[in-house]
Parts: sequence; structure tokens; C-alpha cells
Amino acid sequence: MAKIAVLGYGVVGSGTVEVFYKNKENLEKKAGEPLDIKYILDVRDFPDSPYADKFVKDFNIILNDPEVGVIAEVIGGLKYSYGYVKSALEAGKSVVTSNKELVAAKGAELLAIAKEKNVNFFFEASVGGGIPIIKPIHACLEANEIDEIAGILNGTTNFILTKMIREGMDFADALKIAQELGYAEHDPTADVEGIDACRKICILASLAFGRHVYPDNVHTEGITKVTLRDVEYMESFGAKIKLIGCARREDNDEISIGVFPAVIKDESQLAGVNDVFNAILVRGDATGDVVFYGKGAGKLPTASAVVSDIVSAVKHSDTSRSLTWSDSDQSFVRPFERFMCGNYIRLTAKNADAAKASVKEVFGNVEYLSSKNQPENELAFVTGVMSEKEAVDACGKMAESAEVTARIRVLDY
Amino acid sequence: MAKIAVLGYGVVGSGTVEVFYKNKENLEKKAGEPLDIKYILDVRDFPDSPYADKFVKDFNIILNDPEVGVIAEVIGGLKYSYGYVKSALEAGKSVVTSNKELVAAKGAELLAIAKEKNVNFFFEASVGGGIPIIKPIHACLEANEIDEIAGILNGTTNFILTKMIREGMDFADALKIAQELGYAEHDPTADVEGIDACRKICILASLAFGRHVYPDNVHTEGITKVTLRDVEYMESFGAKIKLIGCARREDNDEISIGVFPAVIKDESQLAGVNDVFNAILVRGDATGDVVFYGKGAGKLPTASAVVSDIVSAVKHSDTSRSLTWSDSDQSFVRPFERFMCGNYIRLTAKNADAAKASVKEVFGNVEYLSSKNQPENELAFVTGVMSEKEAVDACGKMAESAEVTARIRVLDY
Repeated sequence: MAKIAVLGYGVVGSGTVEVFYKNKENLEKKAGEPLDIKYILDVRDFPDSPYADKFVKDFNIILNDPEVGVIAEVIGGLKYSYGYVKSALEAGKSVVTSNKELVAAKGAELLAIAKEKNVNFFFEASVGGGIPIIKPIHACLEANEIDEIAGILNGTTNFILTKMIREGMDFADALKIAQELGYAEHDPTADVEGIDACRKICILASLAFGRHVYPDNVHTEGITKVTLRDVEYMESFGAKIKLIGCARREDNDEISIGVFPAVIKDESQLAGVNDVFNAILVRGDATGDVVFYGKGAGKLPTASAVVSDIVSAVKHSDTSRSLTWSDSDQSFVRPFERFMCGNYIRLTAKNADAAKASVKEVFGNVEYLSSKNQPENELAFVTGVMSEKEAVDACGKMAESAEVTARIRVLDY
Repeated sequence: MAKIAVLGYGVVGSGTVEVFYKNKENLEKKAGEPLDIKYILDVRDFPDSPYADKFVKDFNIILNDPEVGVIAEVIGGLKYSYGYVKSALEAGKSVVTSNKELVAAKGAELLAIAKEKNVNFFFEASVGGGIPIIKPIHACLEANEIDEIAGILNGTTNFILTKMIREGMDFADALKIAQELGYAEHDPTADVEGIDACRKICILASLAFGRHVYPDNVHTEGITKVTLRDVEYMESFGAKIKLIGCARREDNDEISIGVFPAVIKDESQLAGVNDVFNAILVRGDATGDVVFYGKGAGKLPTASAVVSDIVSAVKHSDTSRSLTWSDSDQSFVRPFERFMCGNYIRLTAKNADAAKASVKEVFGNVEYLSSKNQPENELAFVTGVMSEKEAVDACGKMAESAEVTARIRVLDY
């Protein structure tokens, strides 16, 4: 009999308990032994819950109970989680978590403790909600050297961009609807500024490239500056604007990584991912591009990933798994000014012909785009691949003949 | 040190050896011990191969070598494979295979032997080539009750249909190009008649629903009757015709299952899967729809799945895994005449107005489609959901006022 404790009874926590008891019989078959949730930790009281007798307020009761072998941390944030998870692992208990902030900030340290203590630290639910991605990368694509990972990792921003693309709504209105539907928080910063997506691409990059990538070292832009004008130009280019987190293997043991709105051609599997859905593309040297698609958030999808990790932790209770990565310093991440990609650029020209001549001089051959209601003095075009620094410098050089009103990177997935 | 034997040195076999040695160091880290391929079984001679000293022609050398713990069977077919795999499992060796024919025909029996002998029988490469799908369903979605699985499971037919859709090419011409490019065999029957896709949906359904589904019990149609006329009508419906293998949980412990060309709306993640790519949609009760996309065939993608299974088999050499299903009889599969779906129907009317009146009487409300160059006496429409038997009967009833020239089922994924 394996006894489990769930830390936190919010959306994901209550979903975890619900999914666990709904599928208990099947899960026990998979785990090979009886399972039960012994404790639920929450500061609040739930006297009417069918699980009322399981609630505790003191984490030490769980920590000091030798019967508890697996702990599911679904509190979120770092404040309580970090201490709880660390002491649980140090006490020889396996931990599973949905907490992307924790894994992105402390993953290397916690994985090292888990390895030392011969217990598991799993976090499938931290990226992509209910989409299987951590385990497939680790346990199915291991015969590949992974060259790149790119994904639509945040459902809120993808919902907003979908509204802008499909309904010609502007950012502020789309955000308001997202908030009304409960997809965006009252303070939407973590979503719309790319912070949430950054944590997730850090976790994926750490796993794929074997060394911890810290969010502070990742160039991160949100979607607040994406305008309807830019969305409209995409139609003539056959592309969509998506908030992408991406990481690629470079030479010299470095990686490039970033989170930003990006132009994605319609042929890409990422371009057709709409509303609150997520998708993650993994480019392996043997298997080519593989894409994982599904609901990136939500109570039951996320809970199902947590419960799956619980079963894995029980099944492998006697052996530390090979899911791990080492720590790293900043030198692992190549400075973003060397990031290579194409650029979509929109500008307002003093004189359109003169500006076109400058564009030719500064950017070389470009592909001009058009849109309905395009002002006569507005130009929009896509450049060839260049470094971030070259792109910034080139935009600077355009200042004499035009005002650059938008630049969005173009990715090739 | 884990010693491995590879049975068969064809496309997948040579790819397996190549991927294994290319990533050996990394694979050993994942497996937790040194790995080597000790034998390669093939009837042919490869004197110039760097692995020349590993080749043997007698399977018994491998079977009787106690050092060999894991065998990768990549011969294909049943003739040799079945006997080799069965005796290997009975001798207490783990087996991994890319052989969908073997798993679809003998999966339940071989899994039972593996369980009895406490060894592994893995077959990730048998479905979806390099796309992780078997392990994710088994080890990531176990907190879900799976309601449906549907997929584009055969790259050859998807390539042909893509050519028809994009370039207005007819079936025969598109098949010829597929053959020239090496995507289709000289005898394309197994692909174009749906036999290959049928084996794969049988494996997925067995895994998802826990009981073996035999190909003989599955209604299987290929794409040879799909015409360019039908493809053209899809544009006005906003849909694509795809060869789909699908299985769904029904009441009374039954499943519905079939392989046939199906109309898929453009909004579906399956509609945008083009060329030789595959995609598999899994509908879970907690996680909703999850889609796995990638190259469904090819030397290196398939080999990378075989190698990943080898590592899993080594890692779990001391314990029989829970990946298993039980045997079943025909009663598990609901008769196809009760399969429920919408229908796209095209017909040539004696008199268009009279035929429309009959359509209304026989099918109720339908959605009429249009196409360029539509003959005046041709009608095309999509019906509501009905059973296969109702659809067949209704088409029969139309015979008086029209000739039904096409019927393609409409699926909602």
C-alpha cells in the first residue's frame, strides 16, 4: 500500500484528488499495489468535503509520517513549495509537482537531492498541462540528439492572439474577454509578458540539453505590443503571429533561447494551434519533427498529469530514475544578440520609394507584404536570416528615411 | 553490461544499429550501464560492414547465449518473427519490435508470455514510426479513461490524398508518384487498401481499451475509391478527406472500430496533417484531446523508437512492466453496421428537384455542398449522424430518383 500526500487543495489540488479517486482501481493496476491519499495539506478548512478527515494544516505531520512515500506539490509559487519539496526529498520521499516556477528556479538543485536520496522528482504537469511532454522527451526520444524545441506554451496569450487573428479584435479587447472567461488573471502580467512561457521553455531546454537554464538568462517578450496591423499583414504572407518559447542547440556547448511573439508560416503544425491549446515541437536528429498538442492548462488535464506522475513515482519507488540535469552558469546561454532568425518589419516612410531604396541597401532582398487598408506610406516586409544585433542595427539605419513601427521575429518550424 | 541482438538488417535494422552506435554514450547514461550489440541476424552476408563480426545466420546462437538479454526484432511479417519472438520471450529474454503485423496478430499471446516470464515486450515503433505514442498512452495518460483514438496512421495514403487535395491529381497519378519516390511499394495493396492502418489502430485500441482487437474483426476500406470530384466538394465544406483509423469506447463493454476514408473538418488537428506525416488523436476523459504528430515511417525515425525501447528494456530488466492487455473474442467489437457517424453523399439525379425532395424525405435536413464545374444533375450533401446500416438503407432508398456515386463517412475529431 502506497500512501500519498497532496499539498494544496486549490484548482489543481482538488482536481488531483478527484481524478485519483475516480480512476483509483485502474491506477492501482498500473502501479501494481493499492494506493491511497492519506493527507491533504491546506490552510483552509473543508468540513463538507468527502475527504475532510484527510486535511492537515501542519506540513510536519506529513514529513514525519514514514508511511507517506509520495508527495504531490500543487501549491504553486516558491514561498512554501520550495521548502516543503526540498525537505520532503531530503527525508527520502518522492515528489511530483505541477509547479513550473519551482522547477524553473530550483530544478537542478531538487533533482540533485532526489538523485542523492534515491527518490523521484517528477514534474510532467509543469509544462503543457495534460499534454505528455516531459516523459516522452526523456523516455521516448532518448535515441535522438535534440536540436531544437519550440512551443506555444501559454494558453492565455494564444487565446488572445487567436481572437485578434480570427475576429480582428485588438489586444486590449481580447484580453478583457480572456479575463471574463477566466483564462486570464486579474493581473495578467505573468501570461501576457511571457513570464509563464519562459519558465516552461526553461524546463524543456534543461531537459533536452542536460543543463539547467535559468529564466533570468532568457530574453523574454510578451504580446502586449502585437498590433492588429501586424496581424493583418500576416494574411498576405500566409502566416500567423504566435507567442513562441524556443531553444536550440548551438556550437561551443551553448544554446540559444528566447520567448517572443513570432511569425509562423501556415504550413507549420504550430500555426494551426488555436484558442487555449498548447503545442510543443521537438526536433530530433533521428526522428525529425515531433509535435505534441493538447490542453495546456485547466483543472482536470493538469491533474491527470499529476496523477500519472504519482503512479510513476510509486512504480519506481525503489530506484532513482535517470530524469535529471546538471546545474549551469550563464555561459550556457548564448547572448541573445547572436540569436539568428528572419524579421518581419513594418515602417512608416517619409517617402515610400526612398524608403524602399534604403530597405534594399540595409536589408538586401526582402519580401514585401500587403494588407487591406494599407496606408500609402507604410511598408511591411520580411527579411532573410540575420542576427538580433544585425536586425537592431539595421532598424537603426532606417531611421533617416522611415520610422520602424514594428519588428517581429520570423521562425522556421 | 547489457548485450543486445538485432534480428534483421534491412532498412529498420541497419537504422537501429546506426542510431545505437551514434548515441551509445548517451544511451548508456540513460540505461545506467554499458550497452553493446552482440549479434545481428541476417541471411545475407555483409563482409564490408563495420559490424561484420556481429553477423550470424542461426537464430539459435542468439537464443542460447545467456549474455543476450534484449532482442530487437525488425524483420517484419509473421513467418520468422513470430517463432523467434515467442521463443526469445519463453527463454526469458526481453523483446522490442517494430513489427505491427506481429503485434496486431499475436500481441495478446506474446504479452502474456512476457508477463509470465517477467520480461518486457515493447513495440513503440510498430505505430507512428518515430512518434512517441505507445509509451505516452500507457505511462502518461493512465489517469484517463480513454474514450476515443483516431489517427492518420499510414504515410503513403496520406501522401496520395495530399497530392489529390493540393494539386488536383487523381488517385492513379498520385500513387505513381508515391511509388517513384519510394513511399509506396510496387504492390501498394497493404497501404492503399487500409491493411497497414488497420494493424496500427488494432494495436492502439488494444492498448487503450485493454483487450486485443484482431484485424479480422475490423471494417477496413482503403482510398482507391476516393475521387477528385469528392475532394473538390470538400472545399465548400471546409474539410479534407483523410484515411482514418478510429476506435471508440461504447456501452456494454464494446468498442466501435474501423478504417476508412473520412471527411475531417479543417478545424481539426488531423486535417492539417499532410504528405507522409502521421498524427494520432487520443481523447481522454480528464485531459481532453491530445494529438501526437510526426514522421510515421522512415529508417531513422523508426529506428530511434526501436532504440528507445531497447534502453527501456535494459532499464527495467528486473521487472515485468504493466504494459499489457488481455485476449478477447469477436464480441468485443461492435458490428460495424451500428457504427455512428455523419455521411457525405454525392449522387447523380434523374431530376435535381425531385431528388432533393427524396433526400429530404430519406435523410432529413442535410447541408448541401457545391464545387466548381458541378454538373447540374449532381448533388452533394452532408447528413446528420446515423448508423452505418441506416446510411446504407437510406442510399438504397434513393435509387429510384438518383444514382449514389459516393458516400464518405464524416468524423468529428
